Amino acid sequence: MKHLFMVAVAAASLILPASAEEPAPIPSPGEIAAAAPASDWVAIAPSDLLVMDLAPDARGKPRRVVIQLMPAPFSQGWIGNIRKLAAAHWWDGTSVNRVQDNYVAQWGDATEKKPLPKGLATVPEGDYVTQTRGTGGQKRSVTSDGRPLVMNWSGWSPGWSWADQVDAYSTKRSFFRGWSFASTDGKTGWPVHCYGMVGVGRNMSPDTGSGAELYTVIGHAPRHLDRNIAVVGRVINGIEHLSSLPRGTGALGFYEDAGERVAITSIRVATELPTADQPRFEYLSTESDSFARYVDARQNRRDPFFITPAGGADICNIPVPVRPVAVK
Amino acid sequence: MKHLFMVAVAAASLILPASAEEPAPIPSPGEIAAAAPASDWVAIAPSDLLVMDLAPDARGKPRRVVIQLMPAPFSQGWIGNIRKLAAAHWWDGTSVNRVQDNYVAQWGDATEKKPLPKGLATVPEGDYVTQTRGTGGQKRSVTSDGRPLVMNWSGWSPGWSWADQVDAYSTKRSFFRGWSFASTDGKTGWPVHCYGMVGVGRNMSPDTGSGAELYTVIGHAPRHLDRNIAVVGRVINGIEHLSSLPRGTGALGFYEDAGERVAITSIRVATELPTADQPRFEYLSTESDSFARYVDARQNRRDPFFITPAGGADICNIPVPVRPVAVK
Repeated sequence: MKHLFMVAVAAASLILPASAEEPAPIPSPGEIAAAAPASDWVAIAPSDLLVMDLAPDARGKPRRVVIQLMPAPFSQGWIGNIRKLAAAHWWDGTSVNRVQDNYVAQWGDATEKKPLPKGLATVPEGDYVTQTRGTGGQKRSVTSDGRPLVMNWSGWSPGWSWADQVDAYSTKRSFFRGWSFASTDGKTGWPVHCYGMVGVGRNMSPDTGSGAELYTVIGHAPRHLDRNIAVVGRVINGIEHLSSLPRGTGALGFYEDAGERVAITSIRVATELPTADQPRFEYLSTESDSFARYVDARQNRRDPFFITPAGGADICNIPVPVRPVAVK
Repeated sequence: MKHLFMVAVAAASLILPASAEEPAPIPSPGEIAAAAPASDWVAIAPSDLLVMDLAPDARGKPRRVVIQLMPAPFSQGWIGNIRKLAAAHWWDGTSVNRVQDNYVAQWGDATEKKPLPKGLATVPEGDYVTQTRGTGGQKRSVTSDGRPLVMNWSGWSPGWSWADQVDAYSTKRSFFRGWSFASTDGKTGWPVHCYGMVGVGRNMSPDTGSGAELYTVIGHAPRHLDRNIAVVGRVINGIEHLSSLPRGTGALGFYEDAGERVAITSIRVATELPTADQPRFEYLSTESDSFARYVDARQNRRDPFFITPAGGADICNIPVPVRPVAVK
């Protein structure tokens, strides 16, 4: 009976095959995603993937973390900096310096003396939020990957719509191009600090960080950081190489002993890697009917384990399904 | 400047001393808790502590996890079973068998063949929720630790009050005796699946689990489990010994190789340990003014790092401060 212990957990995995012995009469969220037609899955451009290779673990096993960068127009100032830092191989030889339980794992230059590449932008605090609906005229455009985008003079509106959902941090939510956003006014929105999201460490305001110091969330969503720190991406593979690291025993979870730091061998945009070494992932289109069914199932769990469906789901409990592209 | 990188994080620690160089003009939540008078801190009875000793780590360091059991009248059927299992030394020689990233670490008997002690209760599903306000007469009583408790014929009401807070899972929240609870009707309430909470693994309904199979949350709060699984306690110390374990590579994060399991040396109620070895902790009284200020500060971060206070906080982002009792 071991497999049934906590079978609820099954659906927490994004993609989990139904048990052969115990087919669920009502599909779980993971089963809905797994059953979605291929046309509902969208390839993630390798140019939007940041590949972080940590030094091998104690047993010599490789440790690769794959980060997907956010799409335009969100956080693009910082993401531009990150692309420059990766192109300059700036992170090579830096390290993971801080792991604070139920909070973040953070990496960058522990010495804080390594010179930054020239030409990094200073991004204003206003860019923590983004206009998502214009009030003026519109023009049609296409995104870099060929998807239609309706541009507004004061922003952009790619068929954007907000759904009411009240939590302690916002009153509306929206899914767009594989990401989730929060809003209060229905005009501007911001990316949310959920598990696995990647943000930009900074000093005191008005500094907003260059992007050289990054962290990922490894605990309960610290949504109070929304609109206070830039969110630039999310870990889509290998987060266990960060979330299972020993916790730092210094203040804020910094490693006290330099020997505890985990060396970063390299960070590259995937297009800089040999083609065969480029990771390939796809996400379930947030504009698809499959995704709508997935959201509904996460909000109202009817698979057999559950007795009382919640009738809703926290925005951070609706992770957009992402999976590796099968090798052909 | 390293200490300022992500200084926001400081306040996420329950108790974090203010930086000597950079005193915060407006106190952070952690500073408010640290400054609370001794009279606002409540000792946790050793009889309510479950002490789990794991086998030492690879470097020979001890790994102790301390769990606080929930107060009556919540989940008492399962907690009674847990006390019997601990008294029987039933967990000694069992193991942590499953660690699923952003979800749970789970322990118990991997063989599922170890006989359970006699006399364990079969707890009904109705006990996932608890009456928190009666409709009939009242009588005054005291709890086992001498605190006043108003008993109602149909339940109990220890000065209980609910505050409106809407999230995807509930519309009201309450703090009581060091714990947080959620409700929709303001009459019945239930404990919430936040980071570090301990729950009871079970098979399919109507089974509710004996308490022999336990897990703790090591990721974003899986609140959809509320009212579907019993919550019996929370890890108040040493959660890093569970949350930083290697993730299992089998389905649901189970370890595929028995050699990966982490041995449990013993689990005891603290009163069974030699006095000198009994852990001592206290929590910030949820009925104190200090706690009210702490909640307000978590909802409206005004310490210098923050630009935009959220105006609210998720119930799982308001952990009740717990600290070791200083040795005198």
